Amino acid sequence: MVPEKNDKLILLTNDDGLYAAGLRTLLEVMEEFGKVVLISTMESMSGMSQALTVKTPLRVKLLEENEKHRIYACNGTPTDSVKLAVNQLLERYPDWVVAGINHGANASVSVLYSGTMAAAIEGCLYGITSVGFSLNNFSPTADFSVCKKYIRIIMKKLATRPLPTGVCLNVNIPAAEQNEIKGIKICRQSKGNWKEEFEKRKDPMGKTYYWLTGFFQNHEPDANDTDEWALTNNYVSVVPVTVDMTAHWFLGELEEKFKK
Amino acid sequence: MVPEKNDKLILLTNDDGLYAAGLRTLLEVMEEFGKVVLISTMESMSGMSQALTVKTPLRVKLLEENEKHRIYACNGTPTDSVKLAVNQLLERYPDWVVAGINHGANASVSVLYSGTMAAAIEGCLYGITSVGFSLNNFSPTADFSVCKKYIRIIMKKLATRPLPTGVCLNVNIPAAEQNEIKGIKICRQSKGNWKEEFEKRKDPMGKTYYWLTGFFQNHEPDANDTDEWALTNNYVSVVPVTVDMTAHWFLGELEEKFKK
Repeated sequence: MVPEKNDKLILLTNDDGLYAAGLRTLLEVMEEFGKVVLISTMESMSGMSQALTVKTPLRVKLLEENEKHRIYACNGTPTDSVKLAVNQLLERYPDWVVAGINHGANASVSVLYSGTMAAAIEGCLYGITSVGFSLNNFSPTADFSVCKKYIRIIMKKLATRPLPTGVCLNVNIPAAEQNEIKGIKICRQSKGNWKEEFEKRKDPMGKTYYWLTGFFQNHEPDANDTDEWALTNNYVSVVPVTVDMTAHWFLGELEEKFKK
Repeated sequence: MVPEKNDKLILLTNDDGLYAAGLRTLLEVMEEFGKVVLISTMESMSGMSQALTVKTPLRVKLLEENEKHRIYACNGTPTDSVKLAVNQLLERYPDWVVAGINHGANASVSVLYSGTMAAAIEGCLYGITSVGFSLNNFSPTADFSVCKKYIRIIMKKLATRPLPTGVCLNVNIPAAEQNEIKGIKICRQSKGNWKEEFEKRKDPMGKTYYWLTGFFQNHEPDANDTDEWALTNNYVSVVPVTVDMTAHWFLGELEEKFKK
């Protein structure tokens, strides 16, 4: 596949690995819009956030090519994959960077840990229209078909009305039947955090080790304008995510603090 | 060291590893304020962002203990280290989470990739007063003594005037002589991105691999209210960083986009 001048060129990645069902569903829908270059890892890269690989070399292998897509395997993080594709593998800057469909929601503060959303943020840093999609279902055999309708609606909107520089979308789809989903809701990121509980175990040599577990705690369950509320109430949540982490509203007060 | 009720309990970490000079300088200054629990890795964890270790177990080892501090080695990312310390190693929630002093600046969009800032953000998610410090000098033998004065000023301010929930500080110190530094400047995160250039090489088997390199491009070199401007002009930059990545200013417009 070599993209023609008029083809939309779409870069697709995820953090659940090349064999994830969510990735395959997103590939199918993206091929309706243009030519797709897919790059991902053999194994899952969940929870890698915006991590970069700086201590080991990156490898890439072209696995599959046909008229609609090229598929590459890479050993890096989702962010590495986007960087490598944009700088080394693509004929030109892609029109879109799409990531997902993640197995499990990336609402609230999960946006900070998510490899899927990091890939979208990375695309956004290049000035490319970028979206991360997630389904609120961790199961590897989850039914992703319910997502297709909403992915189409959102990408059609973005095709004619691009996002401002430095903003990408975080889309979370409820784990519900098609007829239960009430529509799309534009939201803000809910306040919350993960309450970590570690499982403390002993290895066969008697040495202690820990597994990270934990559960999410929503700090504002009653607010009806958050992504957590939308998901709980069977709406598709769409949060505009900015790469600017400055607490702008606090700049003046902080200046006062430092004057006194 | 067991913290008394009236002791300030300070959790200290970094992403350059236990033997980094910047970490030792920050330990020295923090011991002036309270009892310190230091946790870090044997090797560098640069560029790990907010990554979590989910596929391998975490290990922790108490390396050193005296009246002023305890030092732990951990095999996880900076974010893992904060989670593990808060949940498993500390007697109570720390009063402060401090990270650094990073070898190299974490201004502009580097906040998204930085393991040091991720540790501060993680502390912030727990509702703890959190600050990441960086010196604009990548050298392992950089002179960190210039940082001490500004770390003291900033932490003294925070001791009496805490930050609002969900906000931590990103402090970058210029690589300049003490008498050249003009003071502290409250700033916003500069717009910019990394222009990646990969070094493409052949291994002894003739196979291609890539090393990530690249350089930072400041998109607004003329703006005088950014962290990049402050550093270039020999000010210590202090950016209030929010864990809320919502582009609030764009919510209304996005809603309009989806109505039409």
